[in-house]
Amino acid sequence: MRILGLDPGTATTGYGIIDVGEDGRLTAVSYGTITTPAKTPMPSRLQTIEQELLALIAEFHPDSCGIEEVFFGRNVTTAITVGQARGVLILTLANANIPIGEYSPPKIKDAVTGYGKADKAQVQLMVRNLLDLEETPRPDDAADGLAVAITHAQYQRFESLYNDSL
Amino acid sequence: MRILGLDPGTATTGYGIIDVGEDGRLTAVSYGTITTPAKTPMPSRLQTIEQELLALIAEFHPDSCGIEEVFFGRNVTTAITVGQARGVLILTLANANIPIGEYSPPKIKDAVTGYGKADKAQVQLMVRNLLDLEETPRPDDAADGLAVAITHAQYQRFESLYNDSL
Repeated sequence: MRILGLDPGTATTGYGIIDVGEDGRLTAVSYGTITTPAKTPMPSRLQTIEQELLALIAEFHPDSCGIEEVFFGRNVTTAITVGQARGVLILTLANANIPIGEYSPPKIKDAVTGYGKADKAQVQLMVRNLLDLEETPRPDDAADGLAVAITHAQYQRFESLYNDSL
Repeated sequence: MRILGLDPGTATTGYGIIDVGEDGRLTAVSYGTITTPAKTPMPSRLQTIEQELLALIAEFHPDSCGIEEVFFGRNVTTAITVGQARGVLILTLANANIPIGEYSPPKIKDAVTGYGKADKAQVQLMVRNLLDLEETPRPDDAADGLAVAITHAQYQRFESLYNDSL
């Protein structure tokens, strides 16, 4: 199963793509960022986000996608612009028939490190270890995208185990 | 010129469509709401918003669109969900090559009533008068959509006057 993880933002959306083997082993397929220039009008920025996500879907054919819930502590103006990017990402995934799971930052930290209040460095170290990468993925947003993908992989596995036992 | 006005929300997006005559006279063409059921998953709700906006565009062929800026006083959770709906609306308009203007609630109140702190009843009365309607448009969200359309019409007119004088 191939999983896409997204950390949404208007300026920078981090993404990570991983494969989950039959044995549960995780492998990094690709990671990076979708970026839009700050001075571009919002309609064009949202179109860029849609188009770059469509390009990722066309190239990597993810089966399922995890997306980070926006952190509630941010201010309202930020929340609206992150929400706009998130809306475009969710719509594009839905139109491509890709199922979506949503995860809060503490849930992602807990899934990746076993500790919901882990700091950024701990999360990045665990992402690197779990995916057996030689270096810590850069930039941070791409590492966050991989962390969301790992989280979604875990929840998908629990769900499939649960379904198998029914 | 035909103008669409949108008051975005995930549960209810109000819309109003007006024609601006050569003499500047405003006529209501249509108004109403795009609604999505609260218990439906977010991806489906955003798809419904996209599809219903596409249906309005196909039926009424607006030349330009005004959209309300989200009011900053709302809480962060609301801001994210309104932002998601807004992102879908803006993306859909951009993909249809429809220019977009954004207006804050005080700007809309000022454009419609001449007073930036007007209350809802004053705005609705002026919408009814400006469009020469026999009744106040219902529900409130539809009246708000018409108010945004009227605001956009005024700013478009100022812009065209300004451009003409160059």
